[in-house]
Amino acid sequence: MHEEIPERLAWIAVDWGSSHLRAWAMDAQGAVLARGGSDQGMLALTPPAYEPALLETVGDWLPASDRVPVWICGMAGARQGWREAAYLPLPARLDQLARGAVAPPVCDPRLDVRLLPGLCQYADGAQRSFDVMRGEETQLAGLVAREPGFSGLACLPGTHAKWVWLEAGTVVRFATFLTGELYGLLASQSVLRHSVADTSLGESDCREAFADAVREAASEPGRFSQRLFGLRAADLLDDTLPHDQARRARLGARLSGLTIGLELSALTDDLPSDAAVILIGNAALCARYTLALSTLGRSSRHLDGETAVLAGLELAAAGMGEANPTGETP
Amino acid sequence: MHEEIPERLAWIAVDWGSSHLRAWAMDAQGAVLARGGSDQGMLALTPPAYEPALLETVGDWLPASDRVPVWICGMAGARQGWREAAYLPLPARLDQLARGAVAPPVCDPRLDVRLLPGLCQYADGAQRSFDVMRGEETQLAGLVAREPGFSGLACLPGTHAKWVWLEAGTVVRFATFLTGELYGLLASQSVLRHSVADTSLGESDCREAFADAVREAASEPGRFSQRLFGLRAADLLDDTLPHDQARRARLGARLSGLTIGLELSALTDDLPSDAAVILIGNAALCARYTLALSTLGRSSRHLDGETAVLAGLELAAAGMGEANPTGETP
Repeated sequence: MHEEIPERLAWIAVDWGSSHLRAWAMDAQGAVLARGGSDQGMLALTPPAYEPALLETVGDWLPASDRVPVWICGMAGARQGWREAAYLPLPARLDQLARGAVAPPVCDPRLDVRLLPGLCQYADGAQRSFDVMRGEETQLAGLVAREPGFSGLACLPGTHAKWVWLEAGTVVRFATFLTGELYGLLASQSVLRHSVADTSLGESDCREAFADAVREAASEPGRFSQRLFGLRAADLLDDTLPHDQARRARLGARLSGLTIGLELSALTDDLPSDAAVILIGNAALCARYTLALSTLGRSSRHLDGETAVLAGLELAAAGMGEANPTGETP
Repeated sequence: MHEEIPERLAWIAVDWGSSHLRAWAMDAQGAVLARGGSDQGMLALTPPAYEPALLETVGDWLPASDRVPVWICGMAGARQGWREAAYLPLPARLDQLARGAVAPPVCDPRLDVRLLPGLCQYADGAQRSFDVMRGEETQLAGLVAREPGFSGLACLPGTHAKWVWLEAGTVVRFATFLTGELYGLLASQSVLRHSVADTSLGESDCREAFADAVREAASEPGRFSQRLFGLRAADLLDDTLPHDQARRARLGARLSGLTIGLELSALTDDLPSDAAVILIGNAALCARYTLALSTLGRSSRHLDGETAVLAGLELAAAGMGEANPTGETP
């Protein structure tokens, strides 16, 4: 199988984030021939180090002499990345991301690299605040590749969770929440670290604690930082809590519910009652959002994050051989 | 002067927190003869290490043979401290804290040590949630020492900000907010660390940014985590911001305003329109709360934190020679 890759390889897909690089060898029919990755993320690299880091992961896939398109989304295109692919302003058609792609300088003649741009939103004094995304736009393009002309609301949970309003395949507005980062800091760095543990929400009492916390934070967001300290106080005083690991899992579920509920409280007026929110990302985190949304009486459906990013990169690779070679914003 | 201390010393006041110890040599008239301190906080000590740590700071003040009362508030009385002084449940009369004091074992015959208790609140399904304080109750006792029978609302800003409802010198309810810790984590550990700097709010545009953020968070607390990411996005996109240090100070003022505004949003129904909130703590932080409260149309007055803790320890020292020597809750 491995020897066949260079022969069947049509292009390479790369999702290059702050801390990791993931790559896929793709054939002409959109099938994945091989996967690779490393922890050579943007934060670990200077511009000259990108090509060696890429070759370390994809070098074995390359044919002897043919030039192979490599489509990259994510932080490699940031100002502090390999080469800047400037943010596209809204409204942004997701089937035309490749028009903002740039080609970084490469030495290996077999590499034809394109970096996809992120999106930016300028404040309009009303619904729109200053906001940026880089990487998520490609997952959204994957949604549009699978459902051309999609209109609706999509959510991409994560360190910086994105909520995105689409009209006919175009991003018209988005909002980012620091939810995942806030949860991580509180769970591992704050006084709450003594009281909480990560939980898969597998136990029913964890699911219940999570759902209760979602409801509380969504209905009284102003008491968020009070409820945070309340986790610690309950750990000290609440005799009804279980002990040891079950206690920490229950309180961890509650912390997760509070942070996600705070996020959802900002969106209650926007959540459609007649259409499902599209959740794009890994299954475990999206399942948590599904539970949070259903707690508030809203429906959702899930699009796997890897499926989405591959479909988005394929849309760029298929439609737009002609990237902007100068690196200027078109 | 220094040689006179052992001669004039009547008692020793100690505020022993998680990370620091502060001590004062007091004469019989309540005047401070000397101050000392160290970074030998509760987190750095096991029970047998408390007496040596105390002697390191106050040893020079002690007379040759007389026994000296040492009144200690704060985390030294926690379960994981020197010896546990169990939390007193509400309602708690602040002029009777000493009834819950315990005497830890000491070797030096000149030390007569008493550890003051903290307060705890049990959830009642309505206004009261599980909550604890340890150290702040002594500052509140200082308020009551200066204003006997005080009724009203007090706020003690800090890592874990406390809001406390008093009736006739008795604590009837309190609520803790993780505000200071949240600010610290976001300013120094999150993605925002690249965009913000601490500021004294000395510049008028920092004060304005702080006040705007207080108003926004207090009126729309649900958008808190969105506005956090918005700081980063504004740093990337907002051309109206100043550059370099002025920019970081402005965004730091905004971060501070968002965290304090979130706290105040939970209290808007409770803030009296006809009486000043009593702010107890250091001048700089209380000035920030004064500005935040006045932004929301509320008045406040300031009681210095050191003055308060000394007055509270003095109230305990003067009124209650008889602590509970068994360490049992009375």
